[in-house]
Amino acid sequence: MVKARTAAASRVRAIDTRPKRPRRGAKIGAPAPAVVLVHPQLGENIGFAARAMANFGLSDLRLVAPRDGWPNDKAEAAAAGGAFVLENATVYDSVEAAIDELNYVLAATARPRGMVKRVLSPESAAKQLRRRRVKGEGCGVLFGPERSGLDNDTISLADAILTAPVSPDFASLSLPQAVLVFAYEWLKGEAKASPLGRATQFDGPAREGLATPDTRPATREELFGLFQHLETELDHAGFLRPPEKRPSMVRAIRNMFHRMGATEQDIRTWRGIVAALSRPRTKRGKKLS
Amino acid sequence: MVKARTAAASRVRAIDTRPKRPRRGAKIGAPAPAVVLVHPQLGENIGFAARAMANFGLSDLRLVAPRDGWPNDKAEAAAAGGAFVLENATVYDSVEAAIDELNYVLAATARPRGMVKRVLSPESAAKQLRRRRVKGEGCGVLFGPERSGLDNDTISLADAILTAPVSPDFASLSLPQAVLVFAYEWLKGEAKASPLGRATQFDGPAREGLATPDTRPATREELFGLFQHLETELDHAGFLRPPEKRPSMVRAIRNMFHRMGATEQDIRTWRGIVAALSRPRTKRGKKLS
Repeated sequence: MVKARTAAASRVRAIDTRPKRPRRGAKIGAPAPAVVLVHPQLGENIGFAARAMANFGLSDLRLVAPRDGWPNDKAEAAAAGGAFVLENATVYDSVEAAIDELNYVLAATARPRGMVKRVLSPESAAKQLRRRRVKGEGCGVLFGPERSGLDNDTISLADAILTAPVSPDFASLSLPQAVLVFAYEWLKGEAKASPLGRATQFDGPAREGLATPDTRPATREELFGLFQHLETELDHAGFLRPPEKRPSMVRAIRNMFHRMGATEQDIRTWRGIVAALSRPRTKRGKKLS
Repeated sequence: MVKARTAAASRVRAIDTRPKRPRRGAKIGAPAPAVVLVHPQLGENIGFAARAMANFGLSDLRLVAPRDGWPNDKAEAAAAGGAFVLENATVYDSVEAAIDELNYVLAATARPRGMVKRVLSPESAAKQLRRRRVKGEGCGVLFGPERSGLDNDTISLADAILTAPVSPDFASLSLPQAVLVFAYEWLKGEAKASPLGRATQFDGPAREGLATPDTRPATREELFGLFQHLETELDHAGFLRPPEKRPSMVRAIRNMFHRMGATEQDIRTWRGIVAALSRPRTKRGKKLS
């Protein structure tokens, strides 16, 4: 469902270059930043950008005069599960129309020459945008056409510049890559900002640590039981020799189990392993009894 | 210049599935992490991944049995200015061969079910890898095929899991997106760690982590050797039964060793333990031979 179409599009149904009024009102749920693609060339790239937005919780996609018209089949194919972002995209004739209700706008570009402008990393940009969003401000980021990037006139419409750290070996990010880096930092910041709140829906840094499905960390008692079992069998097998070295060997083995962060299930597995390996067998590997 | 090729490739020039020996020796310039694409399907995605690596300062690309053979014209087109990464890519028949000289390996995947493994965000992963790199350890990240992602057997070869925060609206990252997010965090961390240039050997974070005096982290080759030894003995002892449960039992055991962060010395200890426990003995604990 395209809400507004550009005159440059092949099939113009309605010329309404004004976006919907912002869902403002200084609540935390003010809209997430808009991603504004200025004169994008390839449908695939629009689709990849939409996918990246969907992956990282952005949904307000605005297209300024896409070269190949709109809608675009290649965009839909590339968007995969992010097609809902494309369906809700709005299309404009000019950058000015696309951003006119926004309060704060960034221009994604390498550091420009001959312009005095604040430069933000994706991480700082995400912080800045989140701060403004909480105050109910409408925010957006401009991304330029694939071949040339944003021109200086467009950059001059922005409050600040968004630049990602890149390698000097190949400094040029593609359009969908640039959108992805921004969107990723946006979501990361969201997840960090409220580890116990809405962001718990994100599988974010707050969820780091050891994944222990269906089990729990072992108790010390369980660990000590395993140590005793293993060390007894190793004594039997003559492994913990000579006697003067036994204490340091035992410590080394115990430390390995501690580092492992053993679960209750792990302890049972190891008890089984020790029992199985040390069961009396003939040379051929068969049980004696 | 492809240094090794998979038998699955259309034009096999040399079967050398062994990577170059690590440029180890704890100097500052230890290699940046390897990106290992396991059974990648589409050439475009290999190219996009290579581009993202080049953009963010990674260059060690390893391909495990790419579906459409190697080299791949579509990969080259998609890589753009990152073609130098493709040219230096190495190709392997198996994941094991691709990572065997590495000391620390992450698996990029959503949180797995039924496996106990440490989970790191891209940011934490980058920190962890930088710390290890300063110590001269070889590191890498495994990325799975587009359709299915990494399977559990492959994940069980890794020390920990790398998971990016994503939106529940569309949680699935494409292969090049996942590589990009990791590579971006890698470069970002590099830039932060050393505003004046290369990371110094003496940054604080570099000193954290596992203290391993007089030894070094085990290589994958050493770990795989231990796995084979232990699993052979467990098969002999009838422990890995019934057959349908064997794969999950083996994965659980391997995961425990990975979590342990085994050193070269640890591996020797375990080889000794397994040998001692499984040596044929009488019921009284004396050696038969």
